[in-house]
Amino acid sequence: MDDKVNLDAKFELLDGPYQPGIVGHLNNYKLQIAKLKGPFVWHKHDETDDFFLVLSGHVTIHLRDRDVELDPGELFVVPRGVEHCPEAIEEARVLLIEPDGTPNTGDAGGPMTAEPRLL
Amino acid sequence: MDDKVNLDAKFELLDGPYQPGIVGHLNNYKLQIAKLKGPFVWHKHDETDDFFLVLSGHVTIHLRDRDVELDPGELFVVPRGVEHCPEAIEEARVLLIEPDGTPNTGDAGGPMTAEPRLL
Repeated sequence: MDDKVNLDAKFELLDGPYQPGIVGHLNNYKLQIAKLKGPFVWHKHDETDDFFLVLSGHVTIHLRDRDVELDPGELFVVPRGVEHCPEAIEEARVLLIEPDGTPNTGDAGGPMTAEPRLL
Repeated sequence: MDDKVNLDAKFELLDGPYQPGIVGHLNNYKLQIAKLKGPFVWHKHDETDDFFLVLSGHVTIHLRDRDVELDPGELFVVPRGVEHCPEAIEEARVLLIEPDGTPNTGDAGGPMTAEPRLL
C-alpha cells in the first residue's frame, strides 16, 4: 500500500450492500469494506476467523446460539468454524479483515457470493 | 474471542501512551489498541506489515521520505522493512494489527518496548 486510506472516501466507490471492496492488504490479509443492509446468508469459514469492525450503523451477527449486537466502534471476531449470519436493518458500514481468497459466503456459496474488487 | 469488543471501553483500561493492550485475536494476529502522544521511536518490522487505523486524534507516521497524516477513519499499512516513526502532538487513539510476537519497537528495542497486556 503506497498511501493512506480514507475509509469514508472508499465507501463512495462501493456498489450495493454485501459487495465488498478491498482497500489494502496486511501481509496476506485483505482489508475490505462493505455496506450491509438486510440479512446476509448463514455461513462459516473453516480455515479462518472473521473480523468485523462496525464503522456506522448497527449490525447484528446472528450465531446459532445468540446474537451479537454491534454499534460503531465495536468489533467482533467470529471464530473459525462458527456459523454466522450478519444482518443490518438500516445500512451499516463495516471493516472486514480476512485472508486473501476467503469467500464472503464461506461454505454457503450461492447468489450473494461476491468477488471483492480493489477500490 | 467470546464476545464483542467495545473499543472506547477498552481504552479506559489502558495505561499511558505507547502502552498497547490486546483486545482480541484474528487467527495469529493480535488486535491491539494504543494511545499515542508524543513521538515514538524509529523502527521497522522486517517480517510483517504494520496496520494503523486512527480512531481519534491526529497521527503522523513519519517515513524516511515523507510523512503520512492520519485523521480518524483513516488507515495506513506500513510495508514490512520500511522505517517509520509514529507521532501524535495531542493524544490519539489507534487500532493496531500485527502478528503475535511482533515487538512494538520492531528492530529498535529500547525503553519504549512494551509487552502488550491482554485487556
